[in-house]
Amino acid sequence: MDTRKKIRIGVIGGSRPQKKFLHSAFEIGKLVAGRGAILVCGGLGGVMEEAARGAKQAGGLTIGILPGNNPGDANSYIDIPIATGLGYTRNSLVAMNADVLIAIDGEFGTLSEIAYGRIYGKKVIGLGTWNIEGVVPAASPEEAVDLAFR
Amino acid sequence: MDTRKKIRIGVIGGSRPQKKFLHSAFEIGKLVAGRGAILVCGGLGGVMEEAARGAKQAGGLTIGILPGNNPGDANSYIDIPIATGLGYTRNSLVAMNADVLIAIDGEFGTLSEIAYGRIYGKKVIGLGTWNIEGVVPAASPEEAVDLAFR
Amino acid sequence: MDTRKKIRIGVIGGSRPQKKFLHSAFEIGKLVAGRGAILVCGGLGGVMEEAARGAKQAGGLTIGILPGNNPGDANSYIDIPIATGLGYTRNSLVAMNADVLIAIDGEFGTLSEIAYGRIYGKKVIGLGTWNIEGVVPAASPEEAVDLAFR
Amino acid sequence: MDTRKKIRIGVIGGSRPQKKFLHSAFEIGKLVAGRGAILVCGGLGGVMEEAARGAKQAGGLTIGILPGNNPGDANSYIDIPIATGLGYTRNSLVAMNADVLIAIDGEFGTLSEIAYGRIYGKKVIGLGTWNIEGVVPAASPEEAVDLAFR
Repeated sequence: MDTRKKIRIGVIGGSRPQKKFLHSAFEIGKLVAGRGAILVCGGLGGVMEEAARGAKQAGGLTIGILPGNNPGDANSYIDIPIATGLGYTRNSLVAMNADVLIAIDGEFGTLSEIAYGRIYGKKVIGLGTWNIEGVVPAASPEEAVDLAFR
Repeated sequence: MDTRKKIRIGVIGGSRPQKKFLHSAFEIGKLVAGRGAILVCGGLGGVMEEAARGAKQAGGLTIGILPGNNPGDANSYIDIPIATGLGYTRNSLVAMNADVLIAIDGEFGTLSEIAYGRIYGKKVIGLGTWNIEGVVPAASPEEAVDLAFR
Repeated sequence: MDTRKKIRIGVIGGSRPQKKFLHSAFEIGKLVAGRGAILVCGGLGGVMEEAARGAKQAGGLTIGILPGNNPGDANSYIDIPIATGLGYTRNSLVAMNADVLIAIDGEFGTLSEIAYGRIYGKKVIGLGTWNIEGVVPAASPEEAVDLAFR
Repeated sequence: MDTRKKIRIGVIGGSRPQKKFLHSAFEIGKLVAGRGAILVCGGLGGVMEEAARGAKQAGGLTIGILPGNNPGDANSYIDIPIATGLGYTRNSLVAMNADVLIAIDGEFGTLSEIAYGRIYGKKVIGLGTWNIEGVVPAASPEEAVDLAFR
């Protein structure tokens, strides 16, 4: 399988996004896996679940880094659930375990992951998310994934 | 001493801020302690050290929540150093242990603390920091502290 | 107050110990504070609460490092509650923030704190606790505290 | 691949064990993977590396939960490295992410993982490790794995 050589792309975003962003998350997950990357996310619902569902549809591998202490809490599209028991503090670990991050919509949890992405020196692409320094804006799922692989 | 009844104000900001913000941090620390609050910060240099120095000059109590695993790493104005060994992930704990946060200048570390402040439902005041939703802007140290106690 | 120069003694033990150990915890807390040290503990009930109650009766300062994310969860004898949101994983931080540990009774939570104490190179004294390599046994609260200050 | 249905067996032990335990770790890794389980470990050297090497030789999947913040720190037999940046505090997460633990040799780090295993209600099998309550002793790698799957 040689999972160690694959790029890991983190898709971050909230569990209750606007509907159009659920579709974006699915598309991004599908494109990420289609191009051979591993999907890393927070393992729960909303953007995390749709991105993982997209990645599985394209035959990819998905890692979910969970806030709780039960790996079984992960959504059903996560292949490798990692329990942390750290609550929201796990957001740092999501950013740490991706090579690049794509932020979709999102509120303050997503903002903390964007901040950690930048602290750890990772490129952060944004789709309809926080419009701040350090986030490279994308206009579509396709552009977001293109920028992530560039 | 009855430290449990006192408000805890978190002062967040980087270790290498612009010089004018060091002075602001000192003033804010002094005002916070002068009004009877406990100062919480990240325990290291820059904004954290100047805020603690100000608080000590006003006779206050200071708590420093450190990234490393040695309490002795704290700057010399910290009364209660708390080692975490969590690295940058400790930023979540700084926000968790304050009732209100005042952000001064700052880069992505400060942004992560702002985000965690909002995740945990804390009011976040900003002085020359990230101009984003969820941060109440202040124009001076005095206004920042007034807003924090309001 | 000069809290930075004081020794910090961690008292570890469960929240539902045998009754005689509650009395030992109280005595140890009183002796620790009487000799000028700061008491560090997990901040909750049982051994943690009795040790803090003893320390406060002797006029000492108490720090409680909590598993939850609300400083208000600490027992009422804790001066400085520190919320971590880490759950049981916070046991590592209790050991990290003490210069010496005294373990009283206790089950697997206490065992994890003993282990972390030794990982971090701290002396661990035991009273009616795990009888293992690395724990210096004491026969009474007085002897435990004597050994801790030696 | 259906990794979610597979049992996860954590193999814990130090990075510098006695030599005979390196061989045991390799055998246990091979047996664990041969019986269809996923291997979880701390991702570094010694027992962790030999167990992962054994698991890979039997065609298994390996997860390494690392203390540092760089997934690339994992030994070369780890398929899924998870960086935590938590230092020794990550030991709690190793225990949390296994259904059963097998402890081999080991010092205080291993003891902390045994303790967390029991805190989280996991069965802990021991081979030449801490002889304490809560650890089911095994006399050989084969017996350790048999007990783990029982």
